[in-house]
Amino acid sequence: MDHSYKIRVAITQGDINGIGYEIILKTLSDPRITELCTPIVYGLTKVAAYHRKALELAPITFNIINSASEAEDGKLNFVNCSEEEVKVEFGQSTEVAGFAAFQSLVRATDEFNEGLIDVMLTAPINKHNIQSEEFKFPGHTEYLETKCGDGEKSLMILMQDTLRVALVTTHVPLSKVPSLITPDNIMEKLESFNKTLQQDFDIQKPRIAVLSLNPHNGEEGLLGMEEIEVIKPTIEQAMMNGILCFGPYASDGFFGSLKYQEFDGVLAMYHDQGLAPFKTIAMEEGVNFTAGIPLIRTSPDHGTAYDIAGKGIASEESFRQALYVALDTFRNRINYKEMRKNPLRKQYFDKSGDNEKLDLTTEAQND
Amino acid sequence: MDHSYKIRVAITQGDINGIGYEIILKTLSDPRITELCTPIVYGLTKVAAYHRKALELAPITFNIINSASEAEDGKLNFVNCSEEEVKVEFGQSTEVAGFAAFQSLVRATDEFNEGLIDVMLTAPINKHNIQSEEFKFPGHTEYLETKCGDGEKSLMILMQDTLRVALVTTHVPLSKVPSLITPDNIMEKLESFNKTLQQDFDIQKPRIAVLSLNPHNGEEGLLGMEEIEVIKPTIEQAMMNGILCFGPYASDGFFGSLKYQEFDGVLAMYHDQGLAPFKTIAMEEGVNFTAGIPLIRTSPDHGTAYDIAGKGIASEESFRQALYVALDTFRNRINYKEMRKNPLRKQYFDKSGDNEKLDLTTEAQND
Repeated sequence: MDHSYKIRVAITQGDINGIGYEIILKTLSDPRITELCTPIVYGLTKVAAYHRKALELAPITFNIINSASEAEDGKLNFVNCSEEEVKVEFGQSTEVAGFAAFQSLVRATDEFNEGLIDVMLTAPINKHNIQSEEFKFPGHTEYLETKCGDGEKSLMILMQDTLRVALVTTHVPLSKVPSLITPDNIMEKLESFNKTLQQDFDIQKPRIAVLSLNPHNGEEGLLGMEEIEVIKPTIEQAMMNGILCFGPYASDGFFGSLKYQEFDGVLAMYHDQGLAPFKTIAMEEGVNFTAGIPLIRTSPDHGTAYDIAGKGIASEESFRQALYVALDTFRNRINYKEMRKNPLRKQYFDKSGDNEKLDLTTEAQND
Repeated sequence: MDHSYKIRVAITQGDINGIGYEIILKTLSDPRITELCTPIVYGLTKVAAYHRKALELAPITFNIINSASEAEDGKLNFVNCSEEEVKVEFGQSTEVAGFAAFQSLVRATDEFNEGLIDVMLTAPINKHNIQSEEFKFPGHTEYLETKCGDGEKSLMILMQDTLRVALVTTHVPLSKVPSLITPDNIMEKLESFNKTLQQDFDIQKPRIAVLSLNPHNGEEGLLGMEEIEVIKPTIEQAMMNGILCFGPYASDGFFGSLKYQEFDGVLAMYHDQGLAPFKTIAMEEGVNFTAGIPLIRTSPDHGTAYDIAGKGIASEESFRQALYVALDTFRNRINYKEMRKNPLRKQYFDKSGDNEKLDLTTEAQND
């Protein structure tokens, strides 16, 4: 792909009864946006217009296109996913809102797979109304892993500045967590985390902290054996494999003493262990980054926020940060590949004649 | 008990190889302390002297006594628990340190039960080296519940200013948590929490937030059933019983959006869920308060901190706050009982003669 043009950012509309359009429009209304990238919103133009008016936001001009292939740099592009009339009901979970969110996601995903967009920025969906025969996933992360994963496993990372929290287990009941804390699962996440810290965040030798499963780090076995039997040996094995990882650390002391500042990444064992302290620290600026798959996708770390939908008081800060992270990581990944290319041209040997001949005038593609 | 004299604060020395004496001596070196209360340290005078010298702290004068019965107001009192020579090894877990910590705790506990002290402030112990035939507990809280609980169950509360976090389950492996989230356990903690917020924190109608067990509050059953089957019905039942409790709330959003500021107390389902966000917020000023039992006991929310023991860099802030909380809650509890006393004197009927006679000159004790 040629990247002399600006990075193409697909923006999905998310749930149309939430704060999705509010944060999209607030973010895109900054005229500097089109200098940074070329945004392509996948949504419904009438719904966008309805939100703008209801929230009394400044007028905004979109370049309506049929596909990202028609996107123009310097403009705010908009792929209208349907001409149907769709009703907006602020703060309500409706079937049409779920379907509209799904339509937007499908178009953006398809166009990524066709090579028409570079990164994806998703507005929040409602995990209930989006469910259908075609969408049976706990959320964006799992859907995108299936559609744009190319066989790779995704890794959910919550980040703000240099604090990056990844999870071994994500959207599962707490009672299922202990059985999923296995050497294989931890190792897989450590490898994926290490790789993304290198290629997407440009950290040569990332240092990863691993949290314990049990309170007080298991108290040397008094409060659970997983640290001794599973986590510690896996950390040691990963170290031998060249991953700089440390721990396990008890999560309360780890966050309370600011120890996380000494690391490039923090691997938590389960959702609330990582996300409760993370959100306490990041407040309105957290970004959800889907690592591990070819698609770079980011999103704000909040939901549809039905309770404040339509009121005009939603902060777009997390969404804006998510855009910046998508652009930064995309550039880092390109550079990473560029830097690690074989610097020598493949040489072309003409083997057609009797004498093998080195022809330096013929181009061969480096991989 | 007569409280015209100053509140008598028992201070246990904790682990003698940790930062216990450092934070005790730093706190007590403020001359205003004896105006606030009458401290009685239970420890080893030689060990205290060793710490003071090693840490190059200012000289400090103790009134050495045999028992709190000899304590004098206006002085820093010290009950020497043993004349034996005991070796201090900074940062090391030793048997003698465990025994010394235990000795101190036993003396303070005994003297509380004899009515000689009012509140207890405990320096951190090492939960391993203190274990013996006589001490088989995960920590202070459980030991004190047994020794000074009078049949009541203790409730562990972590607090800083108006943020108070209590736990349904405390020092158990994570895999055991889900089976302990029962209506009875939650209700018991809610009642205890509600009572302590009223009597110890002087909040007439406390509002309590209850956290969910599963991520995303269980996502309406997609990520676990405990919210629907156990937690929500228990909250409703407690509300009917007159306890103002709300939720359940997903812990990450609850802390990240500062929602906790709307409540007087937060009931978390398990240790790390409550303590990781709590310590992230409270940093060095958190206080551990043992509620629910007749003894008022507080402690700093950190451990022995072996890694910085003997270096003189430990902050006494959490310990100092723990002292203030002990004094405040003791006064509140006295006032609470005072305010709810029967305002009418018990009347004395002389039934010795033929005619029952009301004698208003005879005193009868109010209860």
